[in-house]
Amino acid sequence: MAARGPYAKGVAKREEILTAALEVIARQGYRKTSTKELAAAVGLSEAGLLHYFGSKEKLFEAVLRARDEADVDRFEESDLIGKLTAIIRHNSDVPGLVQLYSTFSAEAGDPQHPSHPYFVERYARLRESLADAVRARQSAGTFSPAADPEVIATVLIALSDGLQVQSQFGLPVEPADLLTQVVGLLGSAGGAVDS
Amino acid sequence: MAARGPYAKGVAKREEILTAALEVIARQGYRKTSTKELAAAVGLSEAGLLHYFGSKEKLFEAVLRARDEADVDRFEESDLIGKLTAIIRHNSDVPGLVQLYSTFSAEAGDPQHPSHPYFVERYARLRESLADAVRARQSAGTFSPAADPEVIATVLIALSDGLQVQSQFGLPVEPADLLTQVVGLLGSAGGAVDS
Repeated sequence: MAARGPYAKGVAKREEILTAALEVIARQGYRKTSTKELAAAVGLSEAGLLHYFGSKEKLFEAVLRARDEADVDRFEESDLIGKLTAIIRHNSDVPGLVQLYSTFSAEAGDPQHPSHPYFVERYARLRESLADAVRARQSAGTFSPAADPEVIATVLIALSDGLQVQSQFGLPVEPADLLTQVVGLLGSAGGAVDS
Repeated sequence: MAARGPYAKGVAKREEILTAALEVIARQGYRKTSTKELAAAVGLSEAGLLHYFGSKEKLFEAVLRARDEADVDRFEESDLIGKLTAIIRHNSDVPGLVQLYSTFSAEAGDPQHPSHPYFVERYARLRESLADAVRARQSAGTFSPAADPEVIATVLIALSDGLQVQSQFGLPVEPADLLTQVVGLLGSAGGAVDS
């Protein structure tokens, strides 16, 4: 049975806010989106909006969490390395979200930023999941056994973060194609790979 | 003969401001540095400070230009690929500047940001210079002739940008060591290399 009453209403409202925020930010970018405007989009005052999340930073964190979940569900690639490439390809359609992610994560580099712990946890988790995907490919004989899974995971995350920033200023290649090329090079370096 | 008069004084004051800004931002980070504070550090009002640069964005652009010049002069590595690695290693000592660069470049991804053209030009120039360094290594027989210099340059920039963001949240490896490893792997992939 589904939850009822004020709690369920709160959950539904949070969902509504996140959906609206994803749409508004994707359309007009992080820099131009104020919490006032997000509040207006869901018929709330700014204080009313922040009541659901605690702070502007927690709202943006929730937007990024919702986006990560949507991205993982959206793509049917067999493993996380394939999904990462599909996500990078999809990102060129939502520059506003790329901007939110790039700017907010850079700001949160400051250890005193309220969302610093969120990114510490997110990067550690993503790195571990990608390292698992590398190990699975190594077991399947499709990725060089000489590669260090943690190092490859770190490189893939850095590359996708960096390519997203760089692509905003014009790139000679498609970021997703470039990621695929690099995965191929790293996967075949220093060890025999079945083909 | 050196320039004299009001023009030379203006140039000297700009230099003084940039030196102070580099120091303050390196120490306390981009997020916590206000133009008001930078103005106070050089004995100017906020309006007086911005008079020398036109806007807050143009001031930060000038800080990043000054930092790029200082970095290129600081290291004696034989080529730009070596310098890039040395710069990445040096960056762990100046997290505030890394934060300025990461956050400001991410914000400037918006085509309407006043510093968007600066980054378009900076990335294009850096990519071309790194591609030249790859070509020089290929001519010298120390980098795989199968590699596309523009692609390698794009990968190296993305990796260093991405590693700088990621390193703020904890990394299992030193960014500079990782860059060196990846240069080695890319440089030996798909073609014979003299050793």
